[in-house]
Amino acid sequence: MEEFYSIRWVNQTVRMLDQRLLPEQIVYHDFLTVEEIAQAIKDMIIRGAPAIGSAAAYGLALAVININTDNAQILKQELSRAASKLLQSRPTAVNINKSVERIIKITQKLEITDEIRKRVILEAHLIAKEDVEANRQMGINAFPLIPVRANIIHHCNTGALATVGYGTALGVIRTAHELGKIIHVYVDETRPRFQGSRLTAWELDQLAIPYTIIVDGASGYFMRSRNIDLCLVGCDRIAANGDVANKIGTYNLALVAYNHRIPFYVVGPTSSIDMDTQTGDEISIEERDENEITRIGEYRITFEGANVANPAFDITPAKYISAIITERGIVYPPYQQNLAELLDN
Amino acid sequence: MEEFYSIRWVNQTVRMLDQRLLPEQIVYHDFLTVEEIAQAIKDMIIRGAPAIGSAAAYGLALAVININTDNAQILKQELSRAASKLLQSRPTAVNINKSVERIIKITQKLEITDEIRKRVILEAHLIAKEDVEANRQMGINAFPLIPVRANIIHHCNTGALATVGYGTALGVIRTAHELGKIIHVYVDETRPRFQGSRLTAWELDQLAIPYTIIVDGASGYFMRSRNIDLCLVGCDRIAANGDVANKIGTYNLALVAYNHRIPFYVVGPTSSIDMDTQTGDEISIEERDENEITRIGEYRITFEGANVANPAFDITPAKYISAIITERGIVYPPYQQNLAELLDN
Repeated sequence: MEEFYSIRWVNQTVRMLDQRLLPEQIVYHDFLTVEEIAQAIKDMIIRGAPAIGSAAAYGLALAVININTDNAQILKQELSRAASKLLQSRPTAVNINKSVERIIKITQKLEITDEIRKRVILEAHLIAKEDVEANRQMGINAFPLIPVRANIIHHCNTGALATVGYGTALGVIRTAHELGKIIHVYVDETRPRFQGSRLTAWELDQLAIPYTIIVDGASGYFMRSRNIDLCLVGCDRIAANGDVANKIGTYNLALVAYNHRIPFYVVGPTSSIDMDTQTGDEISIEERDENEITRIGEYRITFEGANVANPAFDITPAKYISAIITERGIVYPPYQQNLAELLDN
Repeated sequence: MEEFYSIRWVNQTVRMLDQRLLPEQIVYHDFLTVEEIAQAIKDMIIRGAPAIGSAAAYGLALAVININTDNAQILKQELSRAASKLLQSRPTAVNINKSVERIIKITQKLEITDEIRKRVILEAHLIAKEDVEANRQMGINAFPLIPVRANIIHHCNTGALATVGYGTALGVIRTAHELGKIIHVYVDETRPRFQGSRLTAWELDQLAIPYTIIVDGASGYFMRSRNIDLCLVGCDRIAANGDVANKIGTYNLALVAYNHRIPFYVVGPTSSIDMDTQTGDEISIEERDENEITRIGEYRITFEGANVANPAFDITPAKYISAIITERGIVYPPYQQNLAELLDN
């Protein structure tokens, strides 16, 4: 097990590691209300599509505890209001929607408030448990794709911090490493928030997996000058046609890999697949604060008032994705058909 | 004219703007010896291939002033030692080599020390003057390539700061803007040293040319979601076959543009063309300090001891370059032949 965790339910409260302070400080905060959870997701105290999916579920668990009523209809109405607060926190990842829908659906036929409370909390635990299990299974499923000696480029953070535990793309790397393959990871630093250099490098360092941090613009240089075997990234939403929304910079990495004929794998649980979204163009891309680009901590990089655009995610068209690795198996093109089949099984 | 300048000869000293402090502070330093100039180039007080080419020339001007001898042979020997200090300062850009070779050659047939001194200083001035003239001419030559309304992605800094004045790729942007075209520039921030967000955005702001700073990994996002018309970059060295060494991240940008069929233009004076280098693979790539990636000012991004690789440049193969814009004209593929013809004319 990890020596740290992104999120945990402790004594009727939600405890989360403040990822904004890593790796400098390891600080956990306790959250008592769904509003606090929504704000924590927005502020990126917790981040990573699966982790915020779990945070949303636990947010609803807090909500049912806090709504003081014996009337099941009122409880469900208030739960629905709580859900909409969570849905507004971050728009791009589908995992919040999936968690919220799943929990709301559970409550639909229940008419006893205590039963609703019990089942919501149970379902939140189940979502968390399934996430860790899915991550471990993805690591096993991907194992045959990883060469015995592998140089891997990885973008953003997809480890235990981005999930409830273990990791998606980083979970694939961990499994390969744990099962004896000789792995070296080129860690894209991932501007603007440095999830790569701050979080992924830190996780790899703790796991004793060899790594080297590079700037995002250097991936092509390393593909040209070193033997890079594959790229691994996570995902925030997979559209029905296989287009993938993920951290800004993913699309550039995919194009660069494509030109070098280097496999580019997306790793994510089936909960990241959104069959209601036909293509990546339908996915709304979150724009974040310009301070993420103009400042680092208290340090000002450029002048006051400089013009900035800060999309937090991009869309990688299915064409540039070699395979999508899920807990139910590896999906190859044509994605439209094969993703639908995967989910039907 | 600019309200600032990268380098100037003032009262037998070399005055340079400390670009490490921009845009926060505008501080000029005076340099009295060639050793100080070599160190300033290494420390990136001055940067940009044409600017360091001129700094090297003025470094030799300082050397001839400081070498206290009436013996022309001794003066030339000492000048040659001074030259080798400059050549060791930064390996990738060819401009230092070109300046040094040009000045050493001038002195070869001279036998009177005062004459040598006078001619070296004169030649340094000439190199500086030619750089500004070349920049203005590149702006004019490129003018027909720029649409009347143009969205341009630009990498690193290629403005007045990177040159003796006016700029190369940024000079092309300036000319188009000055002659009435409606220009908007997406400014790659250019990790690790932020030459885009610190220097290019600042220059564009002063010139009232509309711009938006983006992270390097976002270029593909903007090519997919906006109408990007072209990319413009400078260069540190152009090999005989048209391969281009330039700031890390250039190659990624070129590949991303290539996949979107967006023209990718390299702008540089003919002094950046190195016919002695057959291909980009022969160009040595400077590795810089890991602190450029792990720290920003006093602020530590990631943990002490994190593993980092920091190549300062990359090679963009000729295949991905739509045209090379020089002061003598625009060069199209096949570069091997057309660069040779350009230099023969």
